[in-house]
Amino acid sequence: MKERLSRLRKAMMKEKLAGLLIRVTESGQSTQPNNQNVLYLSGFGGSTAVLLVTARQAFIVADARYYERARLEAPHFRLVKMKRGEKATTCINRALKLARLTKRSKVAFESSRLPHDVYLAWSKELEANLVATSHLVERLRQYKDEAELKYLTKACRATSKVYDEVAALIKPGMREVDVALEIDMRLRKHGASDNSFSSIVASGPNSAIPHHATGNRRLKAGEPVVMDFGGVFDGGYCSDITRTVFVPGKKPSAKMQEIYQIVLEANRQARLALKPGVKYREYDEVARDYIIRRGYGKYFTHGLGHSLGLEAHDPYDYVGDPFDVGAVVTDEPGIYIEGVGGVRIEDDLVVTENGARRLTGAPYWKF
Amino acid sequence: MKERLSRLRKAMMKEKLAGLLIRVTESGQSTQPNNQNVLYLSGFGGSTAVLLVTARQAFIVADARYYERARLEAPHFRLVKMKRGEKATTCINRALKLARLTKRSKVAFESSRLPHDVYLAWSKELEANLVATSHLVERLRQYKDEAELKYLTKACRATSKVYDEVAALIKPGMREVDVALEIDMRLRKHGASDNSFSSIVASGPNSAIPHHATGNRRLKAGEPVVMDFGGVFDGGYCSDITRTVFVPGKKPSAKMQEIYQIVLEANRQARLALKPGVKYREYDEVARDYIIRRGYGKYFTHGLGHSLGLEAHDPYDYVGDPFDVGAVVTDEPGIYIEGVGGVRIEDDLVVTENGARRLTGAPYWKF
Repeated sequence: MKERLSRLRKAMMKEKLAGLLIRVTESGQSTQPNNQNVLYLSGFGGSTAVLLVTARQAFIVADARYYERARLEAPHFRLVKMKRGEKATTCINRALKLARLTKRSKVAFESSRLPHDVYLAWSKELEANLVATSHLVERLRQYKDEAELKYLTKACRATSKVYDEVAALIKPGMREVDVALEIDMRLRKHGASDNSFSSIVASGPNSAIPHHATGNRRLKAGEPVVMDFGGVFDGGYCSDITRTVFVPGKKPSAKMQEIYQIVLEANRQARLALKPGVKYREYDEVARDYIIRRGYGKYFTHGLGHSLGLEAHDPYDYVGDPFDVGAVVTDEPGIYIEGVGGVRIEDDLVVTENGARRLTGAPYWKF
Repeated sequence: MKERLSRLRKAMMKEKLAGLLIRVTESGQSTQPNNQNVLYLSGFGGSTAVLLVTARQAFIVADARYYERARLEAPHFRLVKMKRGEKATTCINRALKLARLTKRSKVAFESSRLPHDVYLAWSKELEANLVATSHLVERLRQYKDEAELKYLTKACRATSKVYDEVAALIKPGMREVDVALEIDMRLRKHGASDNSFSSIVASGPNSAIPHHATGNRRLKAGEPVVMDFGGVFDGGYCSDITRTVFVPGKKPSAKMQEIYQIVLEANRQARLALKPGVKYREYDEVARDYIIRRGYGKYFTHGLGHSLGLEAHDPYDYVGDPFDVGAVVTDEPGIYIEGVGGVRIEDDLVVTENGARRLTGAPYWKF
């Protein structure tokens, strides 16, 4: 955590910020609060808090429900207690004062995470020169440290086991939702606290829809089933895997076999090309060019991958920065042909000095 | 849906709004996007869209992933297609034009749901007189219509069954996380697509912590276990139940038995007092006064309940409005004594003309 804070402070210095406020709050139904930045920097896993990071100090503003947990989980942060009935801004102002910041101090908030009404209250009531910033913490989160890679390795290994178990169960007559329930229960059994997103099970014609909503359709012999799923495991780290399987009882069509092999080879070529210094666009093009050369370019309708970590889709996606050691990214080419079917194959890769290593060991389909 | 739109339009007229923009977008890890207002008004269950509602028309702005789903699920809304690479604001402007709104038209956005950076883009790029509003849709969502009550009744019935099954499994030596896993798997088996929040299982001394993070502690004979859980069921409707049980093998202490009976009676008295016209504060006071009279006032450290529906904690909580027919609210008094233990008993109630009806039929503990 200390190392993460010092990296953040370097980024803050570049933008001449005296302080950074990072807020998380409960949002209704979500089982997963949007608290990844707070968790990443402080270790605090609760659902309501505000962090204040300055050049030398770090504070956590929390209410009575969380005093104990903040002290235990965020030992590098000084607890500023929000009392019952106290306004959040009053308490943040107390933290600003403790940090010796004044009305002139440039203090940033996270523009993409702060609701407009909270922004209004802060800009009126906080005693600081409030400025907007974006993705300061998310950029740090692109490159995983050792502790994070351990968590992700474990998460992906467990998820591959879930695939092994579920692939062995697939048979004609099951509904998509039955397969999804098997996935979800086995994720939990293998240690996930939650799904990292709603499991996608797309069978037959539905496999041609990349974002299919898992439904009641029954699997038929010989047809493809795209299974895209992941869990939230220890430390809050997410896995994300896709495998396309074929329902036993009938040989898959020659067309589907051809598509499968093309997608698999695109997945492999992208993995081989991924190394420090490569940009996301170049990485994407390796898979895309291969699929185009094989004549299916227009059926690969989405990007090749996304950053993965405390969120299944980490919000900052290497748009500007090249990959470097510790980057974790998905490799998920797909071909989707309406009326024929679709194939997607997704692995989670970590960038090392010697190239990319696959975290998701689950086997591919053998015809 | 038509009825909901017409109720919304009445609320918009009061605030002299020519239009209302309601936006939802995917947020990383969450399996449940924060799309309840969009779902409620339009029926669209996808994770990225903007609705525009005017006095006579209704539009849904969606991207290519969702064209089909928007047409199917939101038949009362006119689809405005966002093309690949097109800016969201360009497309929203097209909808504003189709609605014959101009730069002078007062068009509101949802201040508590719009991130600051999107607000900045909208205020710069949208061709309308943009104003902030809060909880217009949430206020409507307080009072459930017939279709919603059917969903909630079913959700609570299934959740009560989960309690029955899990209560029968409790025995010394199980860990809290084992109990939580049983709850979560059985919620899914009984039809939930997800948890409505992370299940709380708090045993022995942990039962004295209202927001305990379920852990590895093993249950011991005779001690209390607070189980607080719920699922997201058909239509996106949530349940939320708490029962306190006692681990078999030893008689619970006289003190815990006394506390249990006080909490149960507070729960019952609040239910009997709940009817149209009662305000939240009055409802809360019925349970609180009873617990105070019995000498445990300072150990009831949270509110009596909250609104329930498309979110486990509906964000607008009857703060100003009195209860009326169709209101659904939790009834969850608790007593938490450090070093002794805690009890919470929570039911979901619906307000009818003749008073409150319990949706959660799960039995209470019998000593």
